[in-house]
Amino acid sequence: MPKIVRFHETGGAEVLKLEDLPLAEPGTGEIRLKVKALGLNRAEIMFRKGQYLETPQLPSRLGYEAAGIIDAVGPEVTDFQIGDRVSTIPSFPMGEYGVYGESAIVPASATAKYPASLSANEGAAIWMQYMTAFGALIEYGKLKKGDAVIITAASSSVGIAAIQMVKATEGIAIATTRGADKKSFLTDAGADHVIVTDEEDLVEKVMALTNGNGARIVFDPVAGPFLEQLATATASGGIIFEYGALAPHPTPFPLFPALAKGLTIRGYTLFEIVKNPDMLKRGKEYIYKGLEAGSLKPIIDRTFPLADIAEAHRYMASNQQKGKIVVTV
Amino acid sequence: MPKIVRFHETGGAEVLKLEDLPLAEPGTGEIRLKVKALGLNRAEIMFRKGQYLETPQLPSRLGYEAAGIIDAVGPEVTDFQIGDRVSTIPSFPMGEYGVYGESAIVPASATAKYPASLSANEGAAIWMQYMTAFGALIEYGKLKKGDAVIITAASSSVGIAAIQMVKATEGIAIATTRGADKKSFLTDAGADHVIVTDEEDLVEKVMALTNGNGARIVFDPVAGPFLEQLATATASGGIIFEYGALAPHPTPFPLFPALAKGLTIRGYTLFEIVKNPDMLKRGKEYIYKGLEAGSLKPIIDRTFPLADIAEAHRYMASNQQKGKIVVTV
Repeated sequence: MPKIVRFHETGGAEVLKLEDLPLAEPGTGEIRLKVKALGLNRAEIMFRKGQYLETPQLPSRLGYEAAGIIDAVGPEVTDFQIGDRVSTIPSFPMGEYGVYGESAIVPASATAKYPASLSANEGAAIWMQYMTAFGALIEYGKLKKGDAVIITAASSSVGIAAIQMVKATEGIAIATTRGADKKSFLTDAGADHVIVTDEEDLVEKVMALTNGNGARIVFDPVAGPFLEQLATATASGGIIFEYGALAPHPTPFPLFPALAKGLTIRGYTLFEIVKNPDMLKRGKEYIYKGLEAGSLKPIIDRTFPLADIAEAHRYMASNQQKGKIVVTV
Repeated sequence: MPKIVRFHETGGAEVLKLEDLPLAEPGTGEIRLKVKALGLNRAEIMFRKGQYLETPQLPSRLGYEAAGIIDAVGPEVTDFQIGDRVSTIPSFPMGEYGVYGESAIVPASATAKYPASLSANEGAAIWMQYMTAFGALIEYGKLKKGDAVIITAASSSVGIAAIQMVKATEGIAIATTRGADKKSFLTDAGADHVIVTDEEDLVEKVMALTNGNGARIVFDPVAGPFLEQLATATASGGIIFEYGALAPHPTPFPLFPALAKGLTIRGYTLFEIVKNPDMLKRGKEYIYKGLEAGSLKPIIDRTFPLADIAEAHRYMASNQQKGKIVVTV
């Protein structure tokens, strides 16, 4: 019987349990994956805590991203066959399809092959990060050459994906990080400029870097009171994507900068993209092309074995990581 | 010498003084207007108080909207001549060009003829209200048949303009007003539904009116804590225009509805439209067409003589008006 991660109560990392569950069969339109690697996401911490957009039905599985080999195919699946090397695109209810474990069943539509040049660990670190950045920056933000983009929480896998996309488009990637310890990492990852927000004035620095215009796009998963500064550092007509709620404090709406500069503040999640077949198709094409060209390249921070899943969650919560945390199976 | 309204200190309505000032000559690209009527706007109260986007240089003129007859034309003005019957499009610094008075000089580019079928009082009640609503609803909001639109502070001239535009597009105009006293007025003005927010639950009522979908567009000059309810009543993928700051309380950003539904919250002012020649042109064409067809029709609440300008401002601050307050000159 495959080992599957579940939790019987919401709470800290310790609620995650490795359980032996019967090998399940894929239903109509589903495939079964022999999992090789899991990519971890903050959404999974929030889901585990009962603080996510989706509420867990206990006991619950969890997990959005897995890479592996298809070992069973359900009825009416035509695009995939047993033996295909694929990873999952987060576009399903986590409680129903959660992929943490040695075996996972997911909708075939939430599955994509990944380039042969990538390892399974890298394969588990593609879709969440690149599709999230693609949707905001490319699909909605219409990112173009020369655009200044502020990327907050830039050391996260999505932050790095955004840096790579801005560089691939010949924009100006302005990464922010709280402490100085991640500065050289972000420069190495391709950021044109790194602002250490614990030590530097964001608005002043962004204005200096953009001839006083401000950034055209802000890509922020933090929210909270810092949004006011981000809005002040945004150019007239600019757009701020809020794609998470990491800040522990409420978020004031930056009304006066928004009025004075005609700012757009856009709540955004990956689900808008993956639920729209046209956008999803464009996203896949863009990402495959970038992976092949090498302009997009997953950065793995650290790996954990599946038995240490709770420890991996604790590490993710600690904010030490630079890039993707991967669990090998 | 023409009487001109100025203020020598920021403050209450009593700071507005009627002063005899020398008749000025229009400069390059400017025209001089013999003023017949003034349309009043809340922006002028905020400017008078020193709380507007633009800060007054004292002593300061004020006022955005005047209708009258051109009685002098500056160098390099080709589109207008003496005797033309025009009104002003707010697209200039209020302190420099403020139109409250018997004579006003404005840039020719901020001037437009108005249909012969309209009185001067109506002519002074066109551009701010219709161009503001046009920019948000038509230009950016891409309003279409069947769209449900929540219009807050709906008894204001801009609110009524929005109701008329939604009806002209065959959308569903959901007007909100705090007290029940303006309900029948709003129904008469064309609103499909009126929600009295002091007595009714906005979210529940909007959901009932939209088959549980919510409104696709919200057009709100209030902001403040009510934005959270507006966001909850907005449909997935919907857009909320914040075009003012009437609320006395800070505005929390509705992060969770924004994330869950991919909401766009857009700070917006008329200036984006009037500073963009293409948008301004489209707006003028749209508004002329609507005025001629009768789908757009200014509603005048009450008129005051110029000598009672302070009283007119007090009345505007009282929120009793239903439609435009006009000062006759």
